[in-house]
Amino acid sequence: MNIILGIDPGSRLTGYGVIRQQGSKFEYVASGCIRMTLGEMPDRLKQIFDGVSQIIEQTQPTVFAIEQVFMARNPDSALKLGQARGAAIVAAKVGGLDVYEYSARQVKQSVVGTGAADKTQVQHMVRTLLKLQANPQADAADALAVALCHGHTQQSLISMAGQASKTVRGRLR
Amino acid sequence: MNIILGIDPGSRLTGYGVIRQQGSKFEYVASGCIRMTLGEMPDRLKQIFDGVSQIIEQTQPTVFAIEQVFMARNPDSALKLGQARGAAIVAAKVGGLDVYEYSARQVKQSVVGTGAADKTQVQHMVRTLLKLQANPQADAADALAVALCHGHTQQSLISMAGQASKTVRGRLR
Repeated sequence: MNIILGIDPGSRLTGYGVIRQQGSKFEYVASGCIRMTLGEMPDRLKQIFDGVSQIIEQTQPTVFAIEQVFMARNPDSALKLGQARGAAIVAAKVGGLDVYEYSARQVKQSVVGTGAADKTQVQHMVRTLLKLQANPQADAADALAVALCHGHTQQSLISMAGQASKTVRGRLR
Repeated sequence: MNIILGIDPGSRLTGYGVIRQQGSKFEYVASGCIRMTLGEMPDRLKQIFDGVSQIIEQTQPTVFAIEQVFMARNPDSALKLGQARGAAIVAAKVGGLDVYEYSARQVKQSVVGTGAADKTQVQHMVRTLLKLQANPQADAADALAVALCHGHTQQSLISMAGQASKTVRGRLR
């Protein structure tokens, strides 16, 4: 069984989502936002680090997934986003987790079926796939979507490995 | 007495410099580079975090100073630099240190006397101010320069506060 922690870091809010995966079945565990409310930038980065560390302690994930940044709008926002990502990733590594990155396109493709999906479609599909009563918040939905993307990707790698070994077996006959 | 840890983070190398300050006197403690050699980006960020944590444990600084990024060349390098800065700053905060940021211009102005100084001038002045036998390596020199800048700034704030209280006393008479 995999417990996947997905993270969507931002300079003001960091969304998180935790799901449990058993084969092709996914189950919702937790989601929410780490809000950076306190003081200056260094304090806010510490809040991300502490927040992610706390989620790891409480939900005991086996793996960590984060959205890759394809292209930030400008150097200033890229720097701020990088700092937030750095704080979250260090918390994952200190917690002993392997870190996987997926592009926004991969996440949308995996969850909605098209890389060009919008936020509402992502929210809707996250709700459907995890059988939630209501749409999750936008930031939490993105984090849950990254976690689902990791689950789907691992699953299809396993299934491809299965196919490959069948092919090899076939060839050997 | 202040022990100041200066850090110059980069996506490949993170320079560090530690100095001891007693009033207007500065003394060299240690300097060098944390090299990110291992694997993928998350592992390299963990190396920065571990490296900075280790330096804090060994040299017991009382404060942490880092160069502010005024404007990175492009969003991609800004993101990488941000991640490295995030890892270093989180290590400082986890180690219980206050974090101070200084612009490259402030650092050069403080150490060389002109905000437009080049790398060689910074290296030379760091060597002179800390009475080193040889020029420190470029990355270590930048980190020592940030530490010196913090020391100088704190000193002039104290001296300004002294001037201010003298003025107040003068007015009261």
